[in-house]
Amino acid sequence: MQSKSFDYAQLLRRGLPPPAAKWTGSARYNFTGGNNDADQVPVEDLIVAATTVLEREGRTLATYGLASGPQGHRRLREFLALKLKRDAGLLCQSEDILLTSGSLQALDLINGVLLEPGDTLIAEQETYGGALTRFNRLKVTTIGIPLDNEGLRIDLLEAALTDLKQRGVRPKYIYTIPTVQNPTGTIMGVQRRQQLLDIAQRHDVPIVEDDCYADLIWDGRRPPAIYGMSERDDVIHVGSFSKSIAPALRVGYVVAPWDVLSRMLAIKADAGSGALEQMVLAEYCDAHFQTHVPALRKALRLKLDALIAALEENFGTSAEFEDPKGGIFLWVKLPDGVDTRKLYQAALAEGVAINPGPEWSTDVSYGASRMRLCFASPSVDEIRRGVATLADVCRREFGVPRRIANIASRGS
Amino acid sequence: MQSKSFDYAQLLRRGLPPPAAKWTGSARYNFTGGNNDADQVPVEDLIVAATTVLEREGRTLATYGLASGPQGHRRLREFLALKLKRDAGLLCQSEDILLTSGSLQALDLINGVLLEPGDTLIAEQETYGGALTRFNRLKVTTIGIPLDNEGLRIDLLEAALTDLKQRGVRPKYIYTIPTVQNPTGTIMGVQRRQQLLDIAQRHDVPIVEDDCYADLIWDGRRPPAIYGMSERDDVIHVGSFSKSIAPALRVGYVVAPWDVLSRMLAIKADAGSGALEQMVLAEYCDAHFQTHVPALRKALRLKLDALIAALEENFGTSAEFEDPKGGIFLWVKLPDGVDTRKLYQAALAEGVAINPGPEWSTDVSYGASRMRLCFASPSVDEIRRGVATLADVCRREFGVPRRIANIASRGS
Repeated sequence: MQSKSFDYAQLLRRGLPPPAAKWTGSARYNFTGGNNDADQVPVEDLIVAATTVLEREGRTLATYGLASGPQGHRRLREFLALKLKRDAGLLCQSEDILLTSGSLQALDLINGVLLEPGDTLIAEQETYGGALTRFNRLKVTTIGIPLDNEGLRIDLLEAALTDLKQRGVRPKYIYTIPTVQNPTGTIMGVQRRQQLLDIAQRHDVPIVEDDCYADLIWDGRRPPAIYGMSERDDVIHVGSFSKSIAPALRVGYVVAPWDVLSRMLAIKADAGSGALEQMVLAEYCDAHFQTHVPALRKALRLKLDALIAALEENFGTSAEFEDPKGGIFLWVKLPDGVDTRKLYQAALAEGVAINPGPEWSTDVSYGASRMRLCFASPSVDEIRRGVATLADVCRREFGVPRRIANIASRGS
Repeated sequence: MQSKSFDYAQLLRRGLPPPAAKWTGSARYNFTGGNNDADQVPVEDLIVAATTVLEREGRTLATYGLASGPQGHRRLREFLALKLKRDAGLLCQSEDILLTSGSLQALDLINGVLLEPGDTLIAEQETYGGALTRFNRLKVTTIGIPLDNEGLRIDLLEAALTDLKQRGVRPKYIYTIPTVQNPTGTIMGVQRRQQLLDIAQRHDVPIVEDDCYADLIWDGRRPPAIYGMSERDDVIHVGSFSKSIAPALRVGYVVAPWDVLSRMLAIKADAGSGALEQMVLAEYCDAHFQTHVPALRKALRLKLDALIAALEENFGTSAEFEDPKGGIFLWVKLPDGVDTRKLYQAALAEGVAINPGPEWSTDVSYGASRMRLCFASPSVDEIRRGVATLADVCRREFGVPRRIANIASRGS
């Protein structure tokens, strides 16, 4: 219809990221993203919740923010205050909580309030790719602290903070995913949490605690939230219903001192996050959260078992990993010669999507032979076939893993 | 629980807006915001839609963006393509549409792609306060073009563009609300739309057409969308379900050439807008949009009649306004001595909220004695009592309107 005559090139803001490609569908075997297990979406109970809450409160949809003001649906905030106290030892009131469009908006608002170009912040060396993308776009310097099997290494954090102090740099915050760390799956114990708090306090640096995966620990036992362990207002806590209920709902939250929350509210210019989803979640969670989540964990653990079995069968000793204590992803080390960014491209052409390690690490060379595999969304059969295809591609491109016979003989 | 010992002041980004105040509830008589008529939320049909769509597609909530990719639920985009063709003469495909978290996110994405500090853009002299706030925060210069009873004055637009050209300035875009202009309620006729397009083309400036209120014209007859009249890709079209269905749903959309849409997608970093609401809207709108909207219009027209009657009764000739052809707001001129920013403060103390004119105008002095009154949300009884209270406050603070007896005698 329209002739393509208008040229926007000269009007675009400088420094934009490259344009998006047209979406052509998901990969056949998709091991990326926070997608969840379709069979575990509690459809019937969500229908009952939607019906009940719309009958009772549907007319409030005529008002921005329902009758709850700009911090989001009050009943869902009250549920969260109860849940956080019960599960995470985190004492807060509904007034301390801001509901957001996924935890991503929470991170964006925190960054919008605290960061400007040239700033420095501390993160785990391996960390959430979406956070790293944001830090890069905001032109801040991210200091990555290496991890061990309990998360952030305190000795190296202390060294980094001391070094920064000597250079006159005060980091804006320490970004940590202490409870099912993304991508390594580690859980920071209570003692290390206390050490982290002590060091942060000594250096007068606040902590941003991203707890998105904390509901998905296999045995259901989690350490207390760092927010709840602090006796001063130096922790900002972020969470989400994306992993525990459904990612497409886009409901996350942040718990923060009013000094910060009032600033986040002032820049949250979207006239509220989606209200229908908040209403339905509040109704659903009051009745079902505590029974739904354990069932979801069991289903996810079975998927992880399938992934581990498929990796052992197809990659043998070429794939190294720790068995994570929860979550929806596995962080895999391949032999040093493998470049997972190249593997990503080659595998995608065969219908297999993975997260290449460099996108999940502040140290690109450390991440080069590593990858993140998300196991919640594909079926057990897709996991098996996808990993087999991935092994074939990896072998073709990099010569590893060797044939099964070789692996078997190695194991003998 | 926590002692207030941590001081964030030194960590805050420079230039932040003031912190938000704690929310203490809505004004008793609330004439602000895009809130809608609670009685017109189609609760029963939304319940049926939610039940049907969750039964059929609920499991897709496990995947970001459902099965539709990052542009949003395909079925809702297909509905929009049909609706825009039928109602607005706007020919597009679902691939040309991006679903957003309200039209506000659409505006933010357009600005994020096109604007940087120091830029210039053109807007209507009286325009949407939310857009003006954004322009100010982005540190762009907004040239306001005066309006007449058909909207943007073409002669003054031409003069402004010529002046800018002589100064070597190419505006980034022309922001217009041509169909039920906010706040004046005017509708730009088809001839003036063509003139606007011609001038924009001559000056090589794109148009951003904000059509949020276009469904709410009393007689249901709207001029074609400017987007649909253009033969080149120089118009970006924005719309919303906030006014036609419910604002709390937060579902808006933008129709744009791929050169711009692909850039907007690249900076839309929220992992998708709320999917449940998109699914429910798609299901609901296919069946009911065309019958719901005319019923809503009738209800809104009755509210407007009540507002006009209340203004005439309480303000007499002190309140001047044009009877708008649609929408949810009335733009009112009070006598020159009235400062509506002061009136706003004094009225709020008595439980009446209004939009002071200066927040809705690029010319603060022009807006000083004007106000916007939204009539969709309060009941007819609240409209009557709220306007009576507002008149009392105005009389106390500014000496106008005079007592009814005087007004009656003036009219005799």
